[in-house]
Amino acid sequence: MLPEWISLDCAAPSELHRQAALERQAQLTKPFGALGRLEQVAVELAALQALERPGADRVPVVLFAGDHGIAAQGVSAYPPEVTVQMLHNFAAGGAAISVLARSLGCPLEVVDVGTLAHEPVPGVVVDKPRRGTRDFSTEAALTPEEVAFAVEAGRRAVLRQADHAPQLVIFGEMGIGNTTSAAAIAAALLSCAPADTVGSGTGLDADGRARKAAVIADALRQHGLTAGAAVADVLKAVGGFEIIAMAGAIVAAAQRRWPVLVDGFIVSVAALVAVRLNPSCRPWLLFSHRSAERGHAIVLDALGARPLIDLDLRLGEASGAATALPIIRLACALHGGMATFAEAAVSGAKS
Amino acid sequence: MLPEWISLDCAAPSELHRQAALERQAQLTKPFGALGRLEQVAVELAALQALERPGADRVPVVLFAGDHGIAAQGVSAYPPEVTVQMLHNFAAGGAAISVLARSLGCPLEVVDVGTLAHEPVPGVVVDKPRRGTRDFSTEAALTPEEVAFAVEAGRRAVLRQADHAPQLVIFGEMGIGNTTSAAAIAAALLSCAPADTVGSGTGLDADGRARKAAVIADALRQHGLTAGAAVADVLKAVGGFEIIAMAGAIVAAAQRRWPVLVDGFIVSVAALVAVRLNPSCRPWLLFSHRSAERGHAIVLDALGARPLIDLDLRLGEASGAATALPIIRLACALHGGMATFAEAAVSGAKS
Repeated sequence: MLPEWISLDCAAPSELHRQAALERQAQLTKPFGALGRLEQVAVELAALQALERPGADRVPVVLFAGDHGIAAQGVSAYPPEVTVQMLHNFAAGGAAISVLARSLGCPLEVVDVGTLAHEPVPGVVVDKPRRGTRDFSTEAALTPEEVAFAVEAGRRAVLRQADHAPQLVIFGEMGIGNTTSAAAIAAALLSCAPADTVGSGTGLDADGRARKAAVIADALRQHGLTAGAAVADVLKAVGGFEIIAMAGAIVAAAQRRWPVLVDGFIVSVAALVAVRLNPSCRPWLLFSHRSAERGHAIVLDALGARPLIDLDLRLGEASGAATALPIIRLACALHGGMATFAEAAVSGAKS
Repeated sequence: MLPEWISLDCAAPSELHRQAALERQAQLTKPFGALGRLEQVAVELAALQALERPGADRVPVVLFAGDHGIAAQGVSAYPPEVTVQMLHNFAAGGAAISVLARSLGCPLEVVDVGTLAHEPVPGVVVDKPRRGTRDFSTEAALTPEEVAFAVEAGRRAVLRQADHAPQLVIFGEMGIGNTTSAAAIAAALLSCAPADTVGSGTGLDADGRARKAAVIADALRQHGLTAGAAVADVLKAVGGFEIIAMAGAIVAAAQRRWPVLVDGFIVSVAALVAVRLNPSCRPWLLFSHRSAERGHAIVLDALGARPLIDLDLRLGEASGAATALPIIRLACALHGGMATFAEAAVSGAKS
């Protein structure tokens, strides 16, 4: 059901370049370790890019949008038509990620992988098998063919970025109802209670969250998603186009040796799916931020991830990853641009 | 002993512009609050700059360097000559803050307010009353006149930035031994045990930290700095030129309505001094990062500060403030550049 390429091994990071980068860090004019995570992220990126001096100038952002049948069950604070309205906003440059990508000089591609839009939105790539998923409270959200289509759509989006020669890539999402699908996928894959993966999304109150958790618990039971369910079965039952496309894109990027800067809750769930489908992609994931969305913590823990920033963001749209990007760029600038003790004739620590 | 201007009131932030900025945030195409601290920092800066749409493009960085007699007591992992060596490194562009300022397009001024340098270092402003402080384990570090000189040196540095028309200003420091002076000032002003304000500095081990705390405890006793000691007496007994200059600079900047982005432990101690000398400067302080230096937490608590980032940095040199600056710039870009619901014809939340 899933394409064969999804399980092809990703390369291992270069330990040779990690070592060279660590040695360079020890020579820069500062106490070793004094730049904390800025040092670590530069060293990590050096290993991934197989360069002693990594960079993060060329960073395309791909935003996947989809709609969700489950939105009919009142699980979102916003009406479903907002997804398509936001496609226009992305294309017109008025959305958060539009502003961030412009500020950062990142190319932004928006892909409709399954919204309710009848007509193509100018400036948005259309690559969808269907308008919206089915309501998973009554039937499977997707057919096996639709799941496979979304995985391939993720890979196609990655291939379209090759012209940018990415040093790093960011994936993001938009889709009213998609925290419900993501929370359902996370609960199924992590065998935890939906209450642990459900958050407020765009702004549910406590009653709304309880209802959302109950909808998910019912659905997991109805679709027979007990502990150890196959990933493909989970995706078919409660998945969403943009989440599956991101999982495909993550694996495809890692197979090309492109490090991925992971955004918040929903992208992290896509990353969890990607790692379950192909564990060799895990080293290619850098984690940008800890979201205010409740379910993020448990997913980050499952991935052994420690994000760079924690600013109470809960917007999605890759906004957290974009916000963290300048930190990675500064880490690279410091790593590549600082003088060594020898170059600057500065004394080292007393022995 | 301290100049009279130090206690002149700073203006209050503009509540009118804070309100306008909050109303704008509620209209931008995202769930209200979904951009978390990015929203808050934009609103805060709007109130400080008295603009509905604030900016952080013009941000001069001023680095104050000084030497410390207490370094003779083995309280640092690096020898004292490193301070002057680093002056050359700053001027040559090889230090961390040199790279960061260049990357961020921030003008960088380095001021020798009391290093051991005999000769002026090309590219470094010299504004010092003396080469290094006295060893406060045996005598007062400074005379009252030297304290006043350093406060004025801070103000003079602020005045020199006026040509940049700063929207925000960053102060930083360098000086072997200066975490010891800062820890002593913090312990005296907060009436806490030196063990609570002492950290590893440039890299002391546990024995070194214990020795450093003991040196401070002895000095506080010897100089009679019991609870409630006057700030000026604390500065004279255990102060450092760069710390006092930064306190003066903070007050002088706030009096000019320039918001200050506070760096790590040592700058936060200078901020504590500034707030004690002139509480009306407190609203003008934004806090950039939580340092890995042990004493930072207690000083941040005392100031009621919640920094933006926490990346295990412990370098000083304004490096944490510089690293956080892009987040503030993105917050301003989002606040000023996103479309409103009405502009983008996007539906709001269901009522």
